[in-house]
Amino acid sequence: MSLSFQVGKTSGNARAGRLLTPHGDIETPVFMPVGTLASVKGIPQDTLEELGAQVILGNTYHLYLRPGIETIRKMGGLHDFMAWPRAMLTDSGGFQVFSLNELRKVTEEGVTFRSHLDGSTHFFSPESAIEAQIGLGADIIMAFDECTEYPADRERVRASMELTLRWGKRCKQYFEEHKQEVPWRTSPRPSALSPRQEQIRGSARNHSEEEASQSFFGIVQGGMDRALRKESAARTIEIGFSGYAIGGLSVGEPRNLTREIVESTLEHLPADKPRYLMGVGTPEQIAEYARLGVDMMDCVLPTRAARHGLLFTSEGKISIKQARYAHDQGPLDPSCACRVCRRYSRAYLRHLYASNEVLAQVLNTIHNLSFYLDTMRRVRHSI
Amino acid sequence: MSLSFQVGKTSGNARAGRLLTPHGDIETPVFMPVGTLASVKGIPQDTLEELGAQVILGNTYHLYLRPGIETIRKMGGLHDFMAWPRAMLTDSGGFQVFSLNELRKVTEEGVTFRSHLDGSTHFFSPESAIEAQIGLGADIIMAFDECTEYPADRERVRASMELTLRWGKRCKQYFEEHKQEVPWRTSPRPSALSPRQEQIRGSARNHSEEEASQSFFGIVQGGMDRALRKESAARTIEIGFSGYAIGGLSVGEPRNLTREIVESTLEHLPADKPRYLMGVGTPEQIAEYARLGVDMMDCVLPTRAARHGLLFTSEGKISIKQARYAHDQGPLDPSCACRVCRRYSRAYLRHLYASNEVLAQVLNTIHNLSFYLDTMRRVRHSI
Repeated sequence: MSLSFQVGKTSGNARAGRLLTPHGDIETPVFMPVGTLASVKGIPQDTLEELGAQVILGNTYHLYLRPGIETIRKMGGLHDFMAWPRAMLTDSGGFQVFSLNELRKVTEEGVTFRSHLDGSTHFFSPESAIEAQIGLGADIIMAFDECTEYPADRERVRASMELTLRWGKRCKQYFEEHKQEVPWRTSPRPSALSPRQEQIRGSARNHSEEEASQSFFGIVQGGMDRALRKESAARTIEIGFSGYAIGGLSVGEPRNLTREIVESTLEHLPADKPRYLMGVGTPEQIAEYARLGVDMMDCVLPTRAARHGLLFTSEGKISIKQARYAHDQGPLDPSCACRVCRRYSRAYLRHLYASNEVLAQVLNTIHNLSFYLDTMRRVRHSI
Repeated sequence: MSLSFQVGKTSGNARAGRLLTPHGDIETPVFMPVGTLASVKGIPQDTLEELGAQVILGNTYHLYLRPGIETIRKMGGLHDFMAWPRAMLTDSGGFQVFSLNELRKVTEEGVTFRSHLDGSTHFFSPESAIEAQIGLGADIIMAFDECTEYPADRERVRASMELTLRWGKRCKQYFEEHKQEVPWRTSPRPSALSPRQEQIRGSARNHSEEEASQSFFGIVQGGMDRALRKESAARTIEIGFSGYAIGGLSVGEPRNLTREIVESTLEHLPADKPRYLMGVGTPEQIAEYARLGVDMMDCVLPTRAARHGLLFTSEGKISIKQARYAHDQGPLDPSCACRVCRRYSRAYLRHLYASNEVLAQVLNTIHNLSFYLDTMRRVRHSI
């Protein structure tokens, strides 16, 4: 396997480690900003670099619909397409198919779903989801799973878990047979690049890519049942992956239940492989999960909340739209050293939001991402 | 007067000069990006600095409605409010009152108009427009004029021009009696600023502000009538301003008529004062007007066109939404060294636009502004 994971220090259950990927190293525990459509909404890539984002996510479901996998594959993969030289991870599309499609139809073969854009019918199978992710060429790709709904009875949870396990095996087999097809191993450099573009995108190729391949993570399901989670973990490990994700959480269950399932599932995951908790959480939660031993997390919360004027600060959450900030000349977060807090006042940010200015989204997102990335940096240093 | 204008080199009618303002010097001819609501839509202030923007515009009409003049005045004026330490110019609100309000009512006293936001009724007089602009505290402020509609018969144009002249005198008198009330001369530094904010906003105060005051420009009207333009220029100069603007153009007339009126009006403006052509134009036009002897220009075109996917390049205008760019891996403009052209492909920019991603607006605007500012830089160097 080309992904290597080194655990450095540990502190209780928490571990500080380093993930080596074909597109750079990732210090863990890490928070991964979400760039659904090959863009972290409103934020230029150089700003993400300045913020210290080490790895970002792309959503296979969205990219499959726009601009299409083939378009990105022909351009050398996601890194080249969006001019992001650092590490990337794609999900399998499974979660979006379940969360955005009320008319989906699940069979043993896969899932038939309708595009949320135009209602057209599409089909994802374990094989086609891995094919798509090989075409996108992220450094880390995910198995195609069924995200079990909440609540669900034990029989339903077990059936869903078994389906995810069967799909996991099919994903693994497809991946092993096709992993050499990743575009940064097979495609020539595009000829139309300027020297500067060549430099930015070329830095994606400094890690002896000819040797490297993508890393493939399995996903543990099992609903809110500790025994099923344990079984799912054991049987997913049996299939054999480079890393293990905990899926099917943050789907409406109470937070203490999330924590309980995370904690109990982590016990059953191998210590020498990265552990990825999908789709959580608040700043407090990501710090807490890291202390429990989670290595990787992603969440749309910092970016989505920013678009709604909800800002995370060292003094708690702020709704910047409130009239109380209309004349507040202080920085958003006096303890934050981000570009936004260093320069602008709460009054200005409130004005931008109240006036529906696009700069509100840009600045709010920069701050929230900075706050999340700083939170995780502090956790790393504390281990 | 605190504004000093030094003409350096000339070349034909074109002049390369330097405008000294309380918030920094401006090399002319200059293009001024429009920041209607104290924000150049989507672009952080540090990016504007990197792009080399020397002076930006605020719109009094919009700022009067949101967040209100008093809010900004209390925070030390526009520079402090938006953390922009370089020069600023505000218009008088006259143009917006005319262009955004179909229900306006003009009397000798001023203009009654309805807010485009909530339909509420407001009133601008020459005095209140100057009072507002003193409260905003831009370095350069404009007389309250009537922008004559096009087409209009000679009688109407003359009546409108006479009204603008009478209003100009009232503006001048109000300004002379109140100019010491500009907030950066009278207000204490806000106490809630962080040291870094203090540094950014404080650099607004390095030009012995105690001595300085705003500069006040008159506006020449007269429709498309060369004789009336000549008369308007002479009588505006008689009132006496620090600089002279040509207003009432780009209101629907053919472009060759715009050029003719600009050229003939410039002949009647004093050579030792800055000349500001309001609200024009394309990159070719701003270069042309600079060669005719215009020193300052502003236009929403680069920012507004960017939001519609229209991009200005050395090879002509590009509509990035077109399918022909879906697989185009080359830079937007091979001759452009901006952050966008150095990093991203046309295919990526097309994808962002087609997917309605906010980053499309951000990157498109950065490029278009860069193209405009570069155009004017080249004109300056050619003089």
